[in-house]
Amino acid sequence: MAKITSVSPLAPASFPELPVIGGVRFASAAAGVRYAGRTDVMLALLDPGSTMAGVFTRSATRSANVLDCQAKIGADSEAGAAIIVNSGNSNAFTGKAGDGSVAAICAAVAGATGLPETRVFTSSTGVIGERLPHDRITSKVGELVAALDPGKGAEAARAIMTTDTFPKGAGATVSLPGGAVKIAGFAKGSGMIAPDMATMLVYLFTDARISRTDLQALVSGINARTFNCITVDSDTSTSDTLLMGATGASGVDVTAEDTAFAEALEGVFLDLAHQVVKDGEGATKFVTVNVTGAASDADARTHALAIANSPLVKTAVAGEDPNWGRVVMAVGKSGAPADRDTLTIRFGDVLVAENGWVAPSYREEDGAALMKAPEITIGVDIGLGEGKATVWTCDLTHGYISINADYRS
Amino acid sequence: MAKITSVSPLAPASFPELPVIGGVRFASAAAGVRYAGRTDVMLALLDPGSTMAGVFTRSATRSANVLDCQAKIGADSEAGAAIIVNSGNSNAFTGKAGDGSVAAICAAVAGATGLPETRVFTSSTGVIGERLPHDRITSKVGELVAALDPGKGAEAARAIMTTDTFPKGAGATVSLPGGAVKIAGFAKGSGMIAPDMATMLVYLFTDARISRTDLQALVSGINARTFNCITVDSDTSTSDTLLMGATGASGVDVTAEDTAFAEALEGVFLDLAHQVVKDGEGATKFVTVNVTGAASDADARTHALAIANSPLVKTAVAGEDPNWGRVVMAVGKSGAPADRDTLTIRFGDVLVAENGWVAPSYREEDGAALMKAPEITIGVDIGLGEGKATVWTCDLTHGYISINADYRS
Repeated sequence: MAKITSVSPLAPASFPELPVIGGVRFASAAAGVRYAGRTDVMLALLDPGSTMAGVFTRSATRSANVLDCQAKIGADSEAGAAIIVNSGNSNAFTGKAGDGSVAAICAAVAGATGLPETRVFTSSTGVIGERLPHDRITSKVGELVAALDPGKGAEAARAIMTTDTFPKGAGATVSLPGGAVKIAGFAKGSGMIAPDMATMLVYLFTDARISRTDLQALVSGINARTFNCITVDSDTSTSDTLLMGATGASGVDVTAEDTAFAEALEGVFLDLAHQVVKDGEGATKFVTVNVTGAASDADARTHALAIANSPLVKTAVAGEDPNWGRVVMAVGKSGAPADRDTLTIRFGDVLVAENGWVAPSYREEDGAALMKAPEITIGVDIGLGEGKATVWTCDLTHGYISINADYRS
Repeated sequence: MAKITSVSPLAPASFPELPVIGGVRFASAAAGVRYAGRTDVMLALLDPGSTMAGVFTRSATRSANVLDCQAKIGADSEAGAAIIVNSGNSNAFTGKAGDGSVAAICAAVAGATGLPETRVFTSSTGVIGERLPHDRITSKVGELVAALDPGKGAEAARAIMTTDTFPKGAGATVSLPGGAVKIAGFAKGSGMIAPDMATMLVYLFTDARISRTDLQALVSGINARTFNCITVDSDTSTSDTLLMGATGASGVDVTAEDTAFAEALEGVFLDLAHQVVKDGEGATKFVTVNVTGAASDADARTHALAIANSPLVKTAVAGEDPNWGRVVMAVGKSGAPADRDTLTIRFGDVLVAENGWVAPSYREEDGAALMKAPEITIGVDIGLGEGKATVWTCDLTHGYISINADYRS
C-alpha cells in the first residue's frame, strides 16, 4: 500500500502570513539526504546579541543532535546563533558516527557564518539508525548562507516536514508600552516518532530584547502548558526539540513577567501545538480533554493523559460513538485517585454521567450528534478537589494503522 | 460495518479436554441478558470444605461485582462456594442499582443452594453503564442448579464469552507423593475492556487440599507473572476478576511451597493468559517481549510494557516490519533508566542492534523474514544490571480499529 499523502482534514485553510522578525534570516535547500524533488535542509541565522532558549525530549535514547543542543543552550553569548535542520534522517541511534555528523555540520556552518561552533544548533528528523550522510548537508551550507532572507520562514517550515501533510506556522504582533514586538514560529510533527517520519521540532523567533534566563523561563513554562499537553499516540521521539531565539531588533525590552508578551507567546505555542495534533497520523477529529476536580493538578494531568492515550477512547471518537463507559474505564485505570460515585462526564456541553451512573437527562442522540463534529471536548470532573489539566489529542483511525503498518519504511 | 466474528488466526486448534475436578460442578443457561441465541450465564458450585482465592482489577472505577467479591474473598468458611457469571452487561458504573443487582443475584443463588450469601461470588461482563436486568438471571438460577454437572466446564467457558472469538480453557494433572491432583480453568477476554465486550475473567479449580492463605499466596504470585504480564491495548477493565477454588476432593494436601503443584498451576495460568492475548482484538501476531539487563526487575517491566504498549511498535509488527528504531524509541520513553550505547536488541535469535547502533552482522532481510512468523520475540538487553521481565502482547491492526470504531455499541 502506498504512503498516505492527502492533507489532514483538520488542516488550516492555508499557511499563515508570518511576521517578519528583524535580525533573523532563513534559507532552505534540497540536499537529497533521503527525499528527492523537495527541500530538506533549512538554516536560520540570528544576528549578534540574540538570546537563545530551548526544551528537549526527555527520552533516554535521545539523538546526538539533542545532546549537542542541550550542552550549548545554557551559555550566554553575544555572537548570534544559527539553527540548521535536516529532514529525512534523524541521526538517532547512530552511535559515535552520529556525534561526528553533528560536529561536521556545526563546523561547516561556523566556517561559513563566522559563528563559534558553540552557537550552531542542529536538529535532524527522519529515519532512525542509519548513518546521516552529513556531507550532503555540509556541501549545501554555502548555498544556504548566500540565500538567507528575512521573509523565507514559510519555505523553512516546508523543508523540515517528514510525514506532515501540511506545514505549520503561527505568529503574533504584541503592542507593548515600548513599542510593537513580533513573534513567529513554525513546527513539524505528526506522530510522536517513527523512522522515516515524525518527531516534533519547533522553532520560534521574536524581535523582543529579552535576557537568556527570562526567555528560557518563558519557554519552559509555556511549553509545559502547550507542547507537553499534546499526545498523538503516547510515543515520544528521540529527537523532539524546541528552540527559540530573541534578536532584540525591535529595541523593546521584555522580561519573563511581561504578561502581554507571555500571553501572545503562549498563543503562538498553542496554535502550533494544536496544528501538530491536527496533523496526527490518520487524525479525523481534534479532541480537547478537560479534567477538573482532581486531588491535584498532577492527578488531573494523569487522568487527562489516560483518557487521551486510551486506544479504546480514541477509536470510539473515530467511530463517532459517545462511548462514555470508555472514559470511565480510562479514569479508573489511570492510577490517580478517583471515585466512581463522584465522577461527572460531559461531551461538549452535554451532561452524560454523574453520581456513579448515566445522567437522567442524558439522551444518547445528543451525545451522538456532538461526536459528529470535527472538534470534540471531553470534560471530566473527578469530584475530589481543585486539580485541573487540559490535554489535546486526536482520534485513532484506520489511517494511523495504514501509515504505520501498511508500508515498509 | 458489521462486527467481526471470524475466529482469531492465533486460536488453538480446539478447546482442550479439561480434567474433571472432583467437588465442583458447572451449568450454563441462556438468560437473554443482552444476547439472543446463546448461553450467557454460568454457575460453578464447589463442595463444602473448598477454599477460595482471587485477584481483581485495580481500577478506581471497578464494578459492584468486583467490590462485592473483594469484600468476601478473604473469609474462611467450610460451607462451599458458588461462582455465577453473566455476559452481555458488566454492571459497571451503574451506581447504587449495581449494588442491588449483585445482592439480588447472591440472594437467589444462596436460596437455591443453601449457601450463605457471603459464599456467592459474582462477575458480570459486557456493556458499561446500563442497568443489569438481574431478574433475567435470578429467574434462571433454579434451572442452573438442577443442571449442575462436573463435566460441563467447556460449556461454562462458552457462556462467559463476549467479543472473544474462541473459548479459552487449560488444565493439568500433577503427580505428587500423596497422589494425583488436577487443575482446570477457563477465561474470557480479548481487549482489556469495552462496552459490549471484553474484560478479562478467569476461573480456576483444583481438587488439591490447600489452605485459603496458601492458595491466595500461590494465586497472587503466579498472577503477577502471567495475567499481569499481558497487554492488548494498555486499557484496564473495571471488572477484571480471577477466582480460584480448591475443593480438596483428591485428598492430597498441597502447600504454597509445593513446587510441582505451583509449576503446574503456573502453566495453566500462562496458557490461559497467552490465549487471551491470542484473541486480542484484531490480533494477527503473538509477541513476546523479553527485557534483560535492566537496573531492576521493576525497571525491566517498565521497559517491556513500554515496548508492548507502543502503538508504533505494534503497528510495525502488524506490518511485518523489523522496525527496531521503534523499539529504541519505546525504551527511551519508558521513564526507566537506559543508555543508548549499552542497548542490545534482538528479533528472535537475530542480533539487530548493539553499542548504540545497528549491529554490523545485521541484515534487514533476516529481520524481515522473522517478522513473517505468527509468533515473534523481541529481546532487549538494557546493559545496566540484572533486572529482567517478560510480557506478552499482540499487534495493532485494522481489525482492532474495525472492532472498536467501525460499529456502534
